Amino acid sequence: MNHPQFNREIVEIRDDRIHGASELARRCLAILAEAAKTLPAADCDEFRQRLLTLAAELAVIRPSMAPIGNLLRRWQERIGTANGDLELLRRLAAEHAAALIALSRQAVTDCAAHAARWFGPGRTLMTHSLSSTVLETCRLLRNQDLRMIVTESRPLTEGRRMVERLSAWNVPTTYITDAQMGLFVARADGVLVGADSLLADGSAINKVGTALLALAARECGVPFHVCCESFKQRAENESPPELEEMASAELEVPAWPGVSVRNVYFDITPAQLIDVWISETGVRQAVAAPWKNPAVSARRPGSE
Amino acid sequence: MNHPQFNREIVEIRDDRIHGASELARRCLAILAEAAKTLPAADCDEFRQRLLTLAAELAVIRPSMAPIGNLLRRWQERIGTANGDLELLRRLAAEHAAALIALSRQAVTDCAAHAARWFGPGRTLMTHSLSSTVLETCRLLRNQDLRMIVTESRPLTEGRRMVERLSAWNVPTTYITDAQMGLFVARADGVLVGADSLLADGSAINKVGTALLALAARECGVPFHVCCESFKQRAENESPPELEEMASAELEVPAWPGVSVRNVYFDITPAQLIDVWISETGVRQAVAAPWKNPAVSARRPGSE
Repeated sequence: MNHPQFNREIVEIRDDRIHGASELARRCLAILAEAAKTLPAADCDEFRQRLLTLAAELAVIRPSMAPIGNLLRRWQERIGTANGDLELLRRLAAEHAAALIALSRQAVTDCAAHAARWFGPGRTLMTHSLSSTVLETCRLLRNQDLRMIVTESRPLTEGRRMVERLSAWNVPTTYITDAQMGLFVARADGVLVGADSLLADGSAINKVGTALLALAARECGVPFHVCCESFKQRAENESPPELEEMASAELEVPAWPGVSVRNVYFDITPAQLIDVWISETGVRQAVAAPWKNPAVSARRPGSE
Repeated sequence: MNHPQFNREIVEIRDDRIHGASELARRCLAILAEAAKTLPAADCDEFRQRLLTLAAELAVIRPSMAPIGNLLRRWQERIGTANGDLELLRRLAAEHAAALIALSRQAVTDCAAHAARWFGPGRTLMTHSLSSTVLETCRLLRNQDLRMIVTESRPLTEGRRMVERLSAWNVPTTYITDAQMGLFVARADGVLVGADSLLADGSAINKVGTALLALAARECGVPFHVCCESFKQRAENESPPELEEMASAELEVPAWPGVSVRNVYFDITPAQLIDVWISETGVRQAVAAPWKNPAVSARRPGSE
């Protein structure tokens, strides 16, 4: 991989609106694996230095997406301390990237398995945007009387891609505008969203509108679940990242004089609005989950 | 006006996504004024009966819009009890419709005047969808350092027409997707929306998404104002109307098998989330308005 190729990859990942945080993290690792095989270098030290520089560049291009930084950090730590000759180092760097890719994929699979077990059959779940863990959960539950409510998720309507898959799996689905989320959340047994990052206190960074859905869910006593791999966890000492803003052109409006068109992509759902966190290690409930209130106990997902 | 013409008008009003409840109510009155002048009838009784039948048809075509029923009811009451010859009755029916149109226009003007006085100069206000009373309030405040935050209001993005006017008046404006309302409401001194109907308990029926905005406003301690004429008030004994749903084609998505695309146009903002009601008669505050809490008193609009 030469430098222009690498720069093209950087731009593509920065502008990517199709793939989630984990998928982009795996793409970064795949780039490093490719670079490990092909990057010209005179010796081990130069090779290691050039690889780590690439990794450092990749690590910061999507600040709202924790798994990119987290997975790359694990890779950097391994490569930074590796010894041996150049060929060995090349192989190690590529293999370690591949191992982390497999680990990330497995974590998504395990998250979804926990989520599917938690909800069980016959549920109506609501989601916002497109998440690979949510999609995998739906795949696991697709023959278990699952029903879905999906928001369009403006401006790029990721909800459409979610619905295409659900439709192909014959999951009865309701598709609504983002503004209708308050009307439809009461029909769900639970809300299930992914996350781009989890803050140390349990708050979740996800596609903008998620925090609104959480507010509406709380108002109706519908439990709110965040399902994501622990690679999305930000460390205690990390400050919350700036929420990424994308091109205002995505809203497809004219250039009105004096009007600022804003397109912030993410919001933070505070931990107090989240009732259940699901990761590859299992399910963690908030201390005061709403279905512990007998008035809404009938809604508890996973109950018999 | 002959019957095919009248039926065309009915269809246009039913499918109208451009005009608000008060504008459509005035259009209904204008149709009755025209019918009063031209409707063929052998005598007074037949004329009155035919006119009242037209009015009854018009009264029910937009159930979420209280002013249509309210203004038409006032007109029906006057025509139902009127005496005199056919020509006199024609004139009376047309003049009474014109008088109610003028009354409705004046009420909008007076609402906006109260709202503008309440907020005063130097405010940042947030709104959702397009309301003629909100627009008139902005016109009155346009040279008083007003700043606006406007949501697009999917599916037909009425917010764009709001922003076009604000831009023409040089009001600095921020335009956002509906999903960003939770992110931006904290930057406003107050939220100001119109309504299509007010229920007897003070709850407001307005463009879908309004109730979400009210939830987000409460979360941030930003006061939430509903500004509309008292013609929008529904009577104590009226049950809340079914919320109108429009064609799913407005969402412009494919016909996915097994997917129900929903397009409910209105939601109900419960009275508990509304802090201030503004009508043509003045301003009424909720007992527990958030700025009575000293922690948020700095936000109180209209304070010095």
